[in-house]
Amino acid sequence: MMDLPELGDAPLKEAPPVEARVAGFRGAAVAAGIRADGREDLALIAAREPVAAAGVFTRNLLKAAPVQVAQSHLARGRIRAILANSGCANAATGPAGLEACRRTCRELARALDCPQDQVLPCSTGVIGQLLPADKVCSALPGLVEGLSREGLARAAGAIMTTDAFRKMARADTEVGGRPVTVLGLAKGAGMIRPDMATMLAFVLTDAAASPAALQEVITRAAEQSFNRATVDGDMSTNDTLVLLASGRAGNRELAPGQGELAPLQEAVTRVCQDLAAMLVADGEGAGHLVRVVVSGAPDQDTARRLCYAIAHSPLCKTAFAGRDPNWGRLLSAAAAKAGRQGLPFVPEKTRLWIGPALIAQGAAYTGTRAEEEAARVMQKNRYQVRLDLGLGESFFWVLTSDLDHAYIEINAEYRS
Amino acid sequence: MMDLPELGDAPLKEAPPVEARVAGFRGAAVAAGIRADGREDLALIAAREPVAAAGVFTRNLLKAAPVQVAQSHLARGRIRAILANSGCANAATGPAGLEACRRTCRELARALDCPQDQVLPCSTGVIGQLLPADKVCSALPGLVEGLSREGLARAAGAIMTTDAFRKMARADTEVGGRPVTVLGLAKGAGMIRPDMATMLAFVLTDAAASPAALQEVITRAAEQSFNRATVDGDMSTNDTLVLLASGRAGNRELAPGQGELAPLQEAVTRVCQDLAAMLVADGEGAGHLVRVVVSGAPDQDTARRLCYAIAHSPLCKTAFAGRDPNWGRLLSAAAAKAGRQGLPFVPEKTRLWIGPALIAQGAAYTGTRAEEEAARVMQKNRYQVRLDLGLGESFFWVLTSDLDHAYIEINAEYRS
Repeated sequence: MMDLPELGDAPLKEAPPVEARVAGFRGAAVAAGIRADGREDLALIAAREPVAAAGVFTRNLLKAAPVQVAQSHLARGRIRAILANSGCANAATGPAGLEACRRTCRELARALDCPQDQVLPCSTGVIGQLLPADKVCSALPGLVEGLSREGLARAAGAIMTTDAFRKMARADTEVGGRPVTVLGLAKGAGMIRPDMATMLAFVLTDAAASPAALQEVITRAAEQSFNRATVDGDMSTNDTLVLLASGRAGNRELAPGQGELAPLQEAVTRVCQDLAAMLVADGEGAGHLVRVVVSGAPDQDTARRLCYAIAHSPLCKTAFAGRDPNWGRLLSAAAAKAGRQGLPFVPEKTRLWIGPALIAQGAAYTGTRAEEEAARVMQKNRYQVRLDLGLGESFFWVLTSDLDHAYIEINAEYRS
Repeated sequence: MMDLPELGDAPLKEAPPVEARVAGFRGAAVAAGIRADGREDLALIAAREPVAAAGVFTRNLLKAAPVQVAQSHLARGRIRAILANSGCANAATGPAGLEACRRTCRELARALDCPQDQVLPCSTGVIGQLLPADKVCSALPGLVEGLSREGLARAAGAIMTTDAFRKMARADTEVGGRPVTVLGLAKGAGMIRPDMATMLAFVLTDAAASPAALQEVITRAAEQSFNRATVDGDMSTNDTLVLLASGRAGNRELAPGQGELAPLQEAVTRVCQDLAAMLVADGEGAGHLVRVVVSGAPDQDTARRLCYAIAHSPLCKTAFAGRDPNWGRLLSAAAAKAGRQGLPFVPEKTRLWIGPALIAQGAAYTGTRAEEEAARVMQKNRYQVRLDLGLGESFFWVLTSDLDHAYIEINAEYRS
């Protein structure tokens, strides 16, 4: 099995500080009055000139108006600015929602003196509420005026909804002999409230790369990060992940399939994985971040399905919350899914670890020593659970978190 | 769309009283000391002589020892007694678990003077704990001695684990001119804790029917009831549903495919549906029982998948708990699954009802009047939500419940 990164044991509800700057981009935020509480709710990220861009969007068929507009604007691969608001998702708002979204793009394009389709709109908030375009447009002059290199962190703050902390991650690398920075800003609070916890993530780099190369990079990075952190498997109506490249690093422009893409890929994936872990850690009531690994599978699809069977199971999540090494629940969740879907699973061949503790082998208990060690592991903020099927070489992993206190009282206390 | 039964508005945590008798069967219960709390934990249901039997078992591949034994004993279609315990699931206990289970069957068979394979064993409790066969065997003489026609209700009590109330349902009908009774006893507390909430259900009738006819009846009844009430889709390691027919009603023995099976089918389905609704209503923290219907689908499989997308969605369940007619969440849950699985879904063709209130049409809000009516509906203990896809004639329904108070604080209060 490939080596997965160490999980560490950092507290869940905070992010390490980062220097939130990257050459070629400025940011700003204002309180436009979209939110009732007066918090900053409108963010702008702008480049000095149009830059190469690529993105990945929700597969939810009820696509919010800004997602529809952003997808069409991104088709040309050149973007000047991202305009993002919290407090309103502008989803399921029909033609009026599309027009409100387009109007804000038009107004911002005028202020920045660029074509309308170089503006990427994003919204997050409650479904079914129409974007108040008047408020947004009134706030645009102040927003544009406030743009600064230091403003990116403020932009990250303005897109927060139920987030407990501001999410930023950074990786520095070298591409074609030039130092390159990758900076990511995100909002989202993982599971349980995925509709309002729309995931928005903006990844900015000063590398030079073609839009097609960026598409390759961001698609792979998403698969290795956000796509493995969406705890209940639902995508919201507004999920958006975009990658913009200003080219200020001065490397020769990267093209798809080039070997020189590797360090950029690595850095973007790392930033996305850090952000995705923050999203899961910020899940409501989440006290633990758990990486679920299914290994020894005959194929990756089997590993993936059984991984989600554990990660989505309320009974496993309550065991995580209760710090209860209830190995029977973990095995049973996988065995139930395998039975339902006809997936390969032979109880006698399985092995189950909680952290380094081998707690069940051949679907039977290995003894109190392993159980005690597993119980200690489950005190940690972050740890790994691994089920090996003993049927092959394929594996999959996913990040999840535990469930709420009310669940705990009821479920975790049952064993007595 | 076929007419579904009225849901009524009865309180969730109680069951209407039933006369718990059916000709040909007796019941008993004792405290065998399997549970630490001293409650009755061992139940016996016995017929005077071997009776026709059929059953449906968990598809979980981690089958508990009693499930493995019961399936093999049921193969001959003749059963004399059901021996069921709470307090220990005897699942994932390997060869020792099988031997413990078989030993209790052997001992009971001796006491009843019948072949060992006429005893059906069932267990419910925590996975990974070995059945204390000594305790069970010591309790058997008292248990057999205590058998009485009135003892069936006590047997239903002894199989409860986390159940808030005892679950029994009854239907009376006529088969071949003879009055026939169907009595069901069940335990299980629906979602959230499906491992310890193993579903055990015993359906007893005095009709005469062949084992093959009973298999037909119980399979169809399960599909129309328990299989649509398993809120998180998991089956436990111990789920067991059996149907025994004493033949005391004196009708001519029913064979598979006979038209005369219809009234028995109807009554057994009705009993299973009543029991399944009790299981969902007894879900932890459940304040509402919701029937989710997806209609207007091009095929039943699409309807089924989208039905579960809503019924399993934490965000929909929190909306139910918060009495919040958050139509966007319901639509989005279905649209997300459709997008992920490539199912037919055209937002513009959809209609969504909460009770009788048409709250969204073409994925857009229909106005405050419908919202107010929907909010009133959501105060009820039991109600229906229906999504019509506008793409065909197929439909599916499933029973679910809402989610916990902690969820409510976080999610239901978000719209402000």
